[in-house]
This record gives sequence, structure tokens and C-alpha cells, in this order.
Amino acid sequence: MKNIAILCSGGDVSGMNAALKRFVDYAFDQGMRPFFVENGYEGLIDNKISAAAYSDVAGIISIGGTKIRTSRSERFKESSYRQIALENLREHGITGLVVLGGDGSFKGMQKLSEECNDIGFIGIPSTIDNDIAGTQYCLGVDTALNAIRVAIDSIRDTASSFGRAFVIEVMGRECGYLALVSALTSGAEMCLIPEVPYNLEVYKEEFLEEKEQGRSYFIAIVSEALKNTEQIVQWFEEEIAIESRMTVLGHIQRGGIPTVHDRLMAFHFVTTAIDALREGIKSTVVCYDDGMFLCKDIKDVAFKKYMIDEDLLALGKEFESPQHKQV
Amino acid sequence: MKNIAILCSGGDVSGMNAALKRFVDYAFDQGMRPFFVENGYEGLIDNKISAAAYSDVAGIISIGGTKIRTSRSERFKESSYRQIALENLREHGITGLVVLGGDGSFKGMQKLSEECNDIGFIGIPSTIDNDIAGTQYCLGVDTALNAIRVAIDSIRDTASSFGRAFVIEVMGRECGYLALVSALTSGAEMCLIPEVPYNLEVYKEEFLEEKEQGRSYFIAIVSEALKNTEQIVQWFEEEIAIESRMTVLGHIQRGGIPTVHDRLMAFHFVTTAIDALREGIKSTVVCYDDGMFLCKDIKDVAFKKYMIDEDLLALGKEFESPQHKQV
Amino acid sequence: MKNIAILCSGGDVSGMNAALKRFVDYAFDQGMRPFFVENGYEGLIDNKISAAAYSDVAGIISIGGTKIRTSRSERFKESSYRQIALENLREHGITGLVVLGGDGSFKGMQKLSEECNDIGFIGIPSTIDNDIAGTQYCLGVDTALNAIRVAIDSIRDTASSFGRAFVIEVMGRECGYLALVSALTSGAEMCLIPEVPYNLEVYKEEFLEEKEQGRSYFIAIVSEALKNTEQIVQWFEEEIAIESRMTVLGHIQRGGIPTVHDRLMAFHFVTTAIDALREGIKSTVVCYDDGMFLCKDIKDVAFKKYMIDEDLLALGKEFESPQHKQV
Amino acid sequence: MKNIAILCSGGDVSGMNAALKRFVDYAFDQGMRPFFVENGYEGLIDNKISAAAYSDVAGIISIGGTKIRTSRSERFKESSYRQIALENLREHGITGLVVLGGDGSFKGMQKLSEECNDIGFIGIPSTIDNDIAGTQYCLGVDTALNAIRVAIDSIRDTASSFGRAFVIEVMGRECGYLALVSALTSGAEMCLIPEVPYNLEVYKEEFLEEKEQGRSYFIAIVSEALKNTEQIVQWFEEEIAIESRMTVLGHIQRGGIPTVHDRLMAFHFVTTAIDALREGIKSTVVCYDDGMFLCKDIKDVAFKKYMIDEDLLALGKEFESPQHKQV
Repeated sequence: MKNIAILCSGGDVSGMNAALKRFVDYAFDQGMRPFFVENGYEGLIDNKISAAAYSDVAGIISIGGTKIRTSRSERFKESSYRQIALENLREHGITGLVVLGGDGSFKGMQKLSEECNDIGFIGIPSTIDNDIAGTQYCLGVDTALNAIRVAIDSIRDTASSFGRAFVIEVMGRECGYLALVSALTSGAEMCLIPEVPYNLEVYKEEFLEEKEQGRSYFIAIVSEALKNTEQIVQWFEEEIAIESRMTVLGHIQRGGIPTVHDRLMAFHFVTTAIDALREGIKSTVVCYDDGMFLCKDIKDVAFKKYMIDEDLLALGKEFESPQHKQV
Repeated sequence: MKNIAILCSGGDVSGMNAALKRFVDYAFDQGMRPFFVENGYEGLIDNKISAAAYSDVAGIISIGGTKIRTSRSERFKESSYRQIALENLREHGITGLVVLGGDGSFKGMQKLSEECNDIGFIGIPSTIDNDIAGTQYCLGVDTALNAIRVAIDSIRDTASSFGRAFVIEVMGRECGYLALVSALTSGAEMCLIPEVPYNLEVYKEEFLEEKEQGRSYFIAIVSEALKNTEQIVQWFEEEIAIESRMTVLGHIQRGGIPTVHDRLMAFHFVTTAIDALREGIKSTVVCYDDGMFLCKDIKDVAFKKYMIDEDLLALGKEFESPQHKQV
Repeated sequence: MKNIAILCSGGDVSGMNAALKRFVDYAFDQGMRPFFVENGYEGLIDNKISAAAYSDVAGIISIGGTKIRTSRSERFKESSYRQIALENLREHGITGLVVLGGDGSFKGMQKLSEECNDIGFIGIPSTIDNDIAGTQYCLGVDTALNAIRVAIDSIRDTASSFGRAFVIEVMGRECGYLALVSALTSGAEMCLIPEVPYNLEVYKEEFLEEKEQGRSYFIAIVSEALKNTEQIVQWFEEEIAIESRMTVLGHIQRGGIPTVHDRLMAFHFVTTAIDALREGIKSTVVCYDDGMFLCKDIKDVAFKKYMIDEDLLALGKEFESPQHKQV
Repeated sequence: MKNIAILCSGGDVSGMNAALKRFVDYAFDQGMRPFFVENGYEGLIDNKISAAAYSDVAGIISIGGTKIRTSRSERFKESSYRQIALENLREHGITGLVVLGGDGSFKGMQKLSEECNDIGFIGIPSTIDNDIAGTQYCLGVDTALNAIRVAIDSIRDTASSFGRAFVIEVMGRECGYLALVSALTSGAEMCLIPEVPYNLEVYKEEFLEEKEQGRSYFIAIVSEALKNTEQIVQWFEEEIAIESRMTVLGHIQRGGIPTVHDRLMAFHFVTTAIDALREGIKSTVVCYDDGMFLCKDIKDVAFKKYMIDEDLLALGKEFESPQHKQV
């Protein structure tokens, strides 16, 4: 009987609870004993480790966030605290740990892995930013995208009723993925992200012509990475001469009832992770790549820059030089 | 055959489209001819008045915002433009006008009414702020409250996962209605509105004790009227020593698919309004009062201060001196 | 210190959990001790009575159904079992019991009340059917209506895409309230309920003419009370010569995340109930009437027939003799 | 300048409108002229073909179903009508046709392709059943799955409140995909589909033991393919001795606001289809395979049996011999 544990680290995402449920169910199914570490690496240091039962995961699959809580840990950057963390794991006889988090969390995991030989570590990419190299999908992205969609659909009602420009700032840290997909799938008139060059002069010419022809409102999606949302609001006021409003979507993007896709991805990610632990893999990250779930070396994941998929960038070309759409 | 028209003024709300549908259906049913005025009082001045048909309102009942657009009009404050507006109405033989809007819009309507004898004017309270004296309900409030609910439910997932205080700023201009109902029905730990006195020292004592006993997160709902949202974020950081985040819900509160309640209220409001026009009433506002729809003099509506219902304020007492809730 | 208890009886509705939360919070606030009875009158007989704490109601406000479960009880119809139930209440020192349920549950409550002098009983109307005399609102109705709305909005997409008639059967036992409001607020073409006379010949003439003019689909809402849903499907096939489908909405109408309205109504209902218990009322039902919450004698509630509000029936007149709507 | 057309055939799915929008936008972007064929193959025969403009697709991206309507056509099975269809296409100078539909629609397309040399035909798999060989994804599946999820989450509230078994019949024709994914991601206790063998005796033993230990409700998901839903309801009543209810989800599975995933997949599918038309491909179906969009010969698509993905079937193993979950 093998004892294995799971923890959540960094920002929470919807789908983490589905991962916890699958972790408990599949561990038991494989003859292992599942443990929960509460509160991320902080809880690992503070020995908040306990055996998990079926009853702990009953009904949580449809709830956002994570039942075992998450954290960012400063202490974990110090070797002495990591030693304590390892001791705590050993105390519970744990031989494998699954970490749900982003690249920062995986770097911490990697250090832990380098400092011990008796425990395996598997990362599962979990961030709404979808900015982790090596995997085409991170847990939580689909729920975030649909939360953003509902918000934009709603704001469009107001924009079209009032004749305004709405500049909507979307999360994603340095990555424009969320903003780009949101702009495409909501039919936004403008999308500004780091990965696609844009020319405000081209937009201006186009928008003024559309306004002349009767267009009364604009929806602009701007990635937080560009740090120019307020400036774009001003640009609409001054250059396009239309009343403008800014909306920072903020934390409503992060949570919410997990979509089917995030629940199912959580199942696949965790299944692959437990299989890898059973096979004795020492340190790896489960990645989703062209329809498959693969274990990749952490060096190819946390230490590389994420690039948006070519097919998607091709769709985004329309925002590079917006085509004229008579309205 | 009587010609009657409808327009939307001020901020748009969900339910306006249901009102337009009922307006067309019921006008025809009563042997009247319905007209739409596009773009509020601006459109009245610019003569954007046209006959409405069944096909104009097909399928719009489930869409937020307003199909005939709304506006705020500076020109309408000048008598000369109001004269043009009246001429435009007369040109189309219109003898009754329904105005969906807030108290500002009703004041404009009142002026128009004073300047003519041949046209009747009926206001329908429409604002998510629910801040109009004389009526217990304004069109759009229920949809706004449910949009806020979804946002808070979602943010709570994140707050509870991460151990943070979330300070959520809610709309309502000078009125705390939206914030109070949202706080009550989402089980928020704190609610600050102009109508309920509060004492941060009491909150501090309570929150520190709850934190001591294990509470890891707080949800605070703050009315935009108080203009102290950022200060409250800082208060949590400094006085309660918990990481805090601010979320300004912004324009997602305004739109969205109208709820059943707003669709049904739109039907009742418009039916009462058309009945009043048919009976020759000259200037009035349809109010919802203890289950009934009554026509009230505009002086009792637009020129008085709205007071939150006593029963509701009584529920809000828990935020005045928050009771201790061991967690 | 007074001990008071709450139970849920009959069909569950959304908003019951909000009622439980308010029950616990307000009881403590008033210096009373709250108790839960699990599993309705069955649990009362089986002595499933236990003290409730704040932690029992944390986070349940946004969850459908009822945490303390509900039941229908055959045993409770026998006096001997009711004696046991009373003994169980006395054993816990309970002097007041709040019952969430429909008219059947109130009749049971009334019998209990007649058989004892030391305990007060208060009913809170809770049924999605909205068919209880004396109250204009029953807990759960608003959530049910919005669940139906989402279903109809979705089916309309399919109906309009395919050129079909959809006959949608809506709950409500003997009462057409749910069906009528749903038909009005979804813009349905047909609505059949017990309270409004209808003439299929008039519908036929109208629908054939609309079809001639280009209408390609119809949405019909039929109350389950009429027991003729399949017959109406056939009527569309044979008389209107259009492919038709039946959808029985079923149990999706009952549950779901409670709306703001149901949460707030739960708060008001329970507050009034506890106030009445504190004042020593012996047996009553809290009713919502023209904006107020009143305690009514059970004889005026459970033993009378519910009548749909006149204003609403007036709106429903359009289904009595459907006006011609050129499409 | 090349003229290309698009039509929808068979059952409608959410995402078709997003496909129409992308079709118009990308056609213009590529210097082609886009045409709409209304009402599927029926409209092709009846020459309901017209040029499409940007304004035709404004705002439709967030609406379920299809704006250009769909149909099943008996006439199209006859060669003489297909000849008329081809003539109508030629009359508008159309050299490429995109068909959104299922395998039946592709077989019709194939016949058309065999009877002419001057027009290219591209299929896009569109069915909520996800039962088309050669592609891992069909347009509409994600929206359907999320509609089912909302329904099951809601029914679970009622099931857990009342202590009942709910047997929920899910669409999918001969394919258990929808039922399997729904059961997994909703944490259902039972799932019966054609692709996974099951043993009611094993379920019985397990369920009786769980009931003994306190479990009060069960959710069973049954594929419509098995045609035994009512029998399973009876099985719960008789073998497990628990009150049971059947819910046939019906047409609410088909429609609804399209998810982000379906909107984005529509964009990719259509982009690939137009690229293929531009390159002169004569007859093909766009398939989604391991993260890529490929054109496949119709023989490998419409004339083969769809097999559920191995990874997913592996997850479904838990329903083959349900593991014991103490509750």
C-alpha cells in the first residue's frame, strides 16, 4: 500500500475540486491511500497533512475553488523549511506528491525533488492564464473563459443600448491567451494582447469609417499584460469621439461552477499523475499535447516561455489589421 | 385609433425589451398604434420616431438592454429643443408617450408635460439602483441583483480557497439597496451602506475573534455611495492583518438576460401605463406599491428621497452590530 | 432561553437552505436556541432532532434543496405517531416549531397543534406550484420560474432552427400559475391552463394564418393539470400540419441555485415566523400579501382553493383569444 | 472572386451561428463572396440561396441554434431533386459548399459530389451525439454537456433533499458519449451505456451496502441507446427499495447559449473548410484529431462506426464494477 498526497499551490482555479475527487477515488481504486495537504506548501511546512476519505470529496465536484485551500509560500523558498516539509511527508509515509499549480509552484516542486530521493513529485498545470510552456491546456481555463464570456455578453447589451465604447481588461499575466479567445468568441471589435502587433492608427481609420456608417458602440478586449487599459479608454474618447467606459473583470474570472471540460480534464490529469507515481517517476509535469496526456520534464515546462498556438494566432490576425465591416 | 409612443432614457436596464414587446402587443390589442422613439430624448428631438410592428419585438423578450437604445440628453434641458420634441410627436399624431427611466428622466418628462396640453405622459421607473421614491420596485433591479449574486458566489469560491478578504463595490448611486440585499442574500460578513450606521471598531473586534477561532476569509459588500472601498481594503490589511483584494463589479451589474420577475414587472408596468393613457391621464408615474400598480403624481416620485423599506432595513440590522458567529 | 425547531415537509424547493440559515442566525440573535428536525415529520417521529450551530448553515445559502432533508409521512396521519412526535419535541424542550411545506404539511401541523397546548406552530408556504390560498408567494417559485425560463429559451433556439412545434409541459399540480407566467414571459404562442378557458378552433384559425404568412415554429406551454400534453402534440401534427415534439420539463423545475428573490423571501418569512413564536402565537401560517408578511389562520390557508391574481389573469387573456400577430 | 455557400442539415446544435459568422468574415477576408442556403437541403432544392453580409451575422455568435435554419430532407434522396439543387448552386455561381451536419448529411453531400465536377463540398461534423467516426469532436457537444450538467446538478439538489433515486435519460442516439461524460463529471452513482458492459447484480450488492451505511439517494445516468430507462426506475424501486423518478432531459440538451469552446471550434472548423475550398478540394470532411484539424475522406467518416476514445472509456471503468464508496 502506497501513500500519496495532493496539494494546491498559487492561485485557485475551478476544477481543483474535481481533481481532488478523482485523486481520492482513483487512489483507492489502485490500492493506494490518499492524503490531503491543506493550504499548499505552507501546509506542507506546518504539517497539515491528513488521510482523505470518500466522504471528503462527496458533492465537491460542482464547486469552484479548492476545498483544501491554496497559498503562496515565502518560507518554502528557504531550504530549511523545505527540509521540514520533506520530514512531514515522510512522517506520513508518503511516497508521492501531486502539485496543482503554475510554473512558480513547479519550480518549488523541482527544488524539493532535488533534495530527496524517496518521494516522487508530479505537477498538474493549473492556472486560468494558460501560460505554461509544454502544455496546451491548464486546468481552470475553460471555466474562466466562460465566466468572461457571460460578462462580455452582458456588457454588450449595455454598450449597444447606450452607444458607448467598453474597454474590458482581461486577466492573463504576461499572456494574451484569455483576452484573444474572449475577443474572438464574443465578436469584439478590438483586441490588444502582447503576442499580436497592433496599430491604433489602423483601428482609428476603420472605427471612424464604421461610426460614419452607423456603428454606435465598440467592445475592446485588452490584456492586463499591456497595462494600457485606461489609455485605450482615453483613446476612444479622444480619437473616436465616443463616450467610453472601463471594466476590469477582476476576480469573477477566477471562480465559478466548473465547466464539464474542466471537470473532465481534472480527471485525465489526475489519472495520468497517479499512474506516473505508481510507475515510480520521480519528478515530472503532466502536459496536454495534441489530445494526449504526457509527462514532461519540468525543465521543458516551468523554465520555458509559453507560446500561443499557431492556429489560434492565425485567427487573431483579424485584430492585427481589422478588416472593414460595414454595419 | 390613438397613436402612442415609448422611449428609454438614462441608463439601460434588463427588462426594457420585455416592456417594448408588451407595449406593441397591448397597444394593438387595445386598438392603438404603437410607435418607437429611438435613442431617448435625443431621438425625440431628432425625430427618430417610427411605427412599431409585431416583427420588431419578436424574440427580444429574452435579451438584455433595450432595442430602441437610450441616451442622456443635454439639449432636452433647453425649452427650445423640447418644443421641437413636441412638434415631432404631433407630426406623428402621437397623443401619449411612455418614458422608461429614472428620476432625472421623469423631471424632463414633467417639463414637457407642463409645456403642452394635447399629449399624455407616463413614466415607468427603470433603474437598477432602486432609488426612486414612491415605488417599491424599479425595472431591472431583480436582474441586477442576480448578476451580482453570481459574481459574489464566484468570488467566495476564490476567497475561501485562498484565505483572503474580498471587498466588493456594488452600484446604487446614493442608495444602498443593491448592496444591502446582495450582502444579506450572499451571507456576506460585512455590509457598508449609507442607510445603516456602522462601527469599524465593532467589526474589528468581531473579525479578529472569528479569525482567532479559525475563519480564513471575509466577504465585504460596500456601496459605491460611500466612496471608501479602497479604504476598507486597507483596513482589512492593517487592522485585521489579512491579505485583501478589491473588486469593482462595474457594468456586469447592469445587463444580462432578464429574469422572469423583470419580464413580468415590465408587462404589468406597461399595461398600467397604456390603460392610463387610454383614460386620458396627462402626466404620471406608474409605481409598484404593496402589490399594486398605481399612477402617482410625479412630485411624489422624482422630487422626493427614496427610503429603503423598513422590513429590509430591519434585516440589515445584523450589519450594524454584527453578532458573533463562531466558525 | 426558548428552544425552537424547524423542519421541511413535502417537496423540496430552492430557498429552504436560506431559510435554515436565517432561522439559526435570527434565533441566536433573539436569544433562542435553534434546533433542526431532519427528514420532515418522519424525523419528528424518529426523534431526529438536534441543536443547530452557525457552522451548520455556513455556505448553504447558495445551494438548492434542503440540507435537513424533507419527506412525506404516512405515519404522521395517525394520532399515535403524532403523540410520539410531540413527546420528542418536549424531550428537547422545544416550544415552537416552524414547518416549511405546502397545504398538506400545514394540515398535519394543524392536527399536531390541536393535540397540544404547550408548543407553537408556524407554517411557511414552500412549493414551486404557488397554489396555496392566502399567500401571493410561496418559497421556491421564483427559482422554479427562472429554471423553466432557461429551458424554454433554449428550446426556442431549436424550435426556430428546425421549424417545429414544441409542446412543453410545466409543473403546478392543479394550478396553472407556473405555466401562465412562463408562457407570458417567454413569449409563447400558446398557453393552456385550467384557469383560462381556451378554444382550439380559435388557435387553429390563427396558427394556420400565421403559418401561411411565414411563421415556421410554435412554442406551446401546457399545465400538467390538464393532462392533455400528448393530445396537443397530436393536434399540432394533425390540425396545424407541423412536426411536433413534447418536452416534459420534470424535476429540473424543482431545484437549482436559489435566486436572490427566494433567498430574501426566505429571510422575511423566517423572521416573521420567529417573531410570531416569540409572541406566543399557537398555530398560524406566514403569508405574503400585498407587500406584507402576515400571520393567517390555517383555515384560511390550507383549506381554501388558491386563485390566481386578477392582474395576472388579465395578462393571460391574450391566450384566451390569441390576437393575430403577423410575423 | 469565388462564391461559396454554407448550409445546416439535420439536428441543430449550438455553435452553428458562430460558424456562420466566421464563414462570412473569413470569406470576405479571403476575397470570396459568402452565400447562405436556408433550411438545409430543402432550401437547396427550393433555391433559398442568397448572398450574406456582415450585418447578417452581427450579434448571432451568442445565440443557440442556427439563424439559417436546418431540416431533414426526404426529397434530397432522389437524384432528380439533387440535380435541381446543383442547378441552383450553379445559378448563383457557387463553386464551394460547406455542410454542417451529421453522418446522414454527409452521405447526402457525398452523392451530390459524385454527381458533379464543378463544385467542392466540405462537411463540418455537427451533432451533440459526438458519434461521428474520424473526428474526436463534433460541434455542439460542449454546450450540450454543460446543459446536461446544469440539469443534473439541479436534480441532485432534489434527490439529496428527498432521499430518492433519479434515473436521468441522456441523448446520444446509439452512442454513450454524452451519458458517460455526464455521469463522470457529475459524480453519478450509476452510468449505463452501450459501450461499457454492466452488471445490475454488482450494482445491487454495492447500492444495498451503501444504503445500509446511510446513503439516501442515487443518481443514475442512462443512455437513450439502451431503451431501458423505465426498467431501471423499476429496478431501483424493487431491488434497492428506494422511491425512484425518471427524468428524460429531452430537447433542453440541444440548445442554449453556445459555450466558448463551441464558438472557438466553429471558428477553427470553418477556417479549415474555407482553406480547403480555396485549395480546390472536391469532397471532404473536416475532422478534429489529436489537436489538429484535418480533411478526411468521407468514407472514413460517414461510413464507419464511431468508437469512444480509449482514455475516456478507461475512466468509465468505474461504472463497470462500481467500487465501494463508504458514505
